[in-house]
Amino acid sequence: MINYEKFYSDRVKPMKGSAIREMFKRMADPSIISLAGGNPASELFPGAELAEIANDILTKNPAGALQYGTTDGLPAMKECARKRAEKVGAVNDDDQILIMTGANQGIDLFAKALINKGDKIIVESPSFIGSLNAFRTYECELVGVKVESDGMDVCKLEEALKNNDNVKMIYTIPTFQNPTGTTMSLEKRKKVIELANKYDVLVLEDNPYGDLRFSGEDLPTLKSLDTEGRVIYAGSFSKILSPGMRLGYIIGAPAILEKIEILKQVNDVHTPVLNQMMCVEFMNKYDIDEYIEKNRRLYGEKCNAMLDAIDKYFPKGKVNYTVPQGGIFMWCECPELNDISPLVDKALEKKVAIVPGSNFAIDIKAPSNMFRLNFSSATIDNIVEGIKRLGEALNEVLD
Amino acid sequence: MINYEKFYSDRVKPMKGSAIREMFKRMADPSIISLAGGNPASELFPGAELAEIANDILTKNPAGALQYGTTDGLPAMKECARKRAEKVGAVNDDDQILIMTGANQGIDLFAKALINKGDKIIVESPSFIGSLNAFRTYECELVGVKVESDGMDVCKLEEALKNNDNVKMIYTIPTFQNPTGTTMSLEKRKKVIELANKYDVLVLEDNPYGDLRFSGEDLPTLKSLDTEGRVIYAGSFSKILSPGMRLGYIIGAPAILEKIEILKQVNDVHTPVLNQMMCVEFMNKYDIDEYIEKNRRLYGEKCNAMLDAIDKYFPKGKVNYTVPQGGIFMWCECPELNDISPLVDKALEKKVAIVPGSNFAIDIKAPSNMFRLNFSSATIDNIVEGIKRLGEALNEVLD
Repeated sequence: MINYEKFYSDRVKPMKGSAIREMFKRMADPSIISLAGGNPASELFPGAELAEIANDILTKNPAGALQYGTTDGLPAMKECARKRAEKVGAVNDDDQILIMTGANQGIDLFAKALINKGDKIIVESPSFIGSLNAFRTYECELVGVKVESDGMDVCKLEEALKNNDNVKMIYTIPTFQNPTGTTMSLEKRKKVIELANKYDVLVLEDNPYGDLRFSGEDLPTLKSLDTEGRVIYAGSFSKILSPGMRLGYIIGAPAILEKIEILKQVNDVHTPVLNQMMCVEFMNKYDIDEYIEKNRRLYGEKCNAMLDAIDKYFPKGKVNYTVPQGGIFMWCECPELNDISPLVDKALEKKVAIVPGSNFAIDIKAPSNMFRLNFSSATIDNIVEGIKRLGEALNEVLD
Repeated sequence: MINYEKFYSDRVKPMKGSAIREMFKRMADPSIISLAGGNPASELFPGAELAEIANDILTKNPAGALQYGTTDGLPAMKECARKRAEKVGAVNDDDQILIMTGANQGIDLFAKALINKGDKIIVESPSFIGSLNAFRTYECELVGVKVESDGMDVCKLEEALKNNDNVKMIYTIPTFQNPTGTTMSLEKRKKVIELANKYDVLVLEDNPYGDLRFSGEDLPTLKSLDTEGRVIYAGSFSKILSPGMRLGYIIGAPAILEKIEILKQVNDVHTPVLNQMMCVEFMNKYDIDEYIEKNRRLYGEKCNAMLDAIDKYFPKGKVNYTVPQGGIFMWCECPELNDISPLVDKALEKKVAIVPGSNFAIDIKAPSNMFRLNFSSATIDNIVEGIKRLGEALNEVLD
């Protein structure tokens, strides 16, 4: 066999797939309680409704559902995305909308449209591994700004903007952030926009969890505070309808979205048409907000169950954790540990999976004493049992 | 509004989306007979079968169909891809398979895994615009090798390999090529593999039309002739089941596919699960080869109708054209013209759309006296009427 190493582009040479695959394998093993993934609760999926809708579409309009579509998305699907975005002020009359095969595609291709080798992206530290890894494939430099309990440290953000050339954008998940579960305060939201204007950079606002608030008050999106057309907004149907259908969207200035549309054209041509039609019909026939409300309530219950179990089973005073007001994640820190790996391994022995914090770090090789917990996916019983086992693992590791 | 120009990456700065959008607009206008696109015949889509299948899957296994999936694809879907590939010798025991959201994604991400700025890809000239544009987004140099009636000019291919450094791969659509409709001879297939071995480059074999032969004998795929693991094979369900479902796959050496899997993970996470399950069930419940056979017969009839109409309506001796043995395209040359644009405009006045050859050229700005015709999409009546109008346009332009 030939040696393939010489053929690889510089961007993929350092990449190893094993960590991600490992995580998925853990989730696939049915005997393990996974608090590791980012799956929404599947028990509420509107299977019966979508079964009828799919049947209907394919019976009445097979050519429409099965033939090629246009790259930007079905007009009716773009309207659905617009309706969701209007609720959070994330679209204005001048904006363009593109339907993406999941919001991640929008994030990937937006970076592709912006980043030359050596350009910089300011990101929250920690942040979503999928976005960070997408950015890394364009050989950019990631500049991390620490996430506090009320979002990005905006003083450090200004420092980063002042001290770095070639910053193209700030990437943020302001609401129920992945992985920390924290939400950026209104003051900080305003400050981020102010700084983007002052230092002339773009902002990518990633908001897959914004609809999933179960306590506290909604805050305006960064997009709604933007008066200069600097914010590109990425929305998703993954957490409010179905992740497996891969439906997301991006909204922003037409000039930029035209570039992204070309990149999407050569990437996957268009988002699957049947999936778009099913989403449109679901939103036409049913009240999606009612469905979201059910999810919200469930996630609130699951989050509380997790917090109660943590209180009961984690060693007292040994673990700091965030208390989210929505979304699907919380974030834990073990100040007495330097490296969380022994805990992750110990937990896995006890058949519970968590994600070590290093996965979400800018420097993935640095040891982390943090880990992420997901509370949307497992049942309440499994959440309690999983936290109990994790508490045992913590006691053993911290002993 | 701010000026976005400074934010764009070098790769997207020269890109204009208008040509592609214009083409799609033409296809969308129902009063125009489109011989321009690459749509398969929608009249044969198995809508009723897929309606029942979708209904069934979403009723019995909503969590499976609607939850996140794994990046590499469902095991059962990978088996479907393997079965298709086995028929043409395009998979061996050591190979890995990845399910892609359309084969185009595989082509895009394969290039992403290989190409540094300034690297070279040898492509057929002319070739498929979607692949060429995908390659261009990685700032490579495209080296064109003329397509003859029996495929790539292999003498020129060797010259190109000898005279160019940093060639990473040869990209070819050996069977019923897009846009020319030509098929590479067995001798040339062997020669391409021999040259890839000799000059130590990889080969990307794109085979979306291989199943659609309506005359002549099948030829072995390049992948089946490869003994060194140099060929990556891209297959598609777009032309044998449904393009709107966006289901394709790539097959090849695990080392390379591992890199592509990581790039897919950050691109769209995974191919929509319902779509994969529907394809699996269709192949389980029905004989897909029987369905393909129906398409083949129809395409043969449509191709013959187009050839007969050309014979009847095109000005004698003024247009050279290929006679395909399968696939969905034929290719026309007007030796007396320098530039096909006036014909394209004249045809559009007469409400028939064709694609000018420049779209498929390495140098898209050079004038072309060629155009592509599609015979799979329009009805036979519309093919005849379209060619009649195109004949009138030709008479007027050549007058």
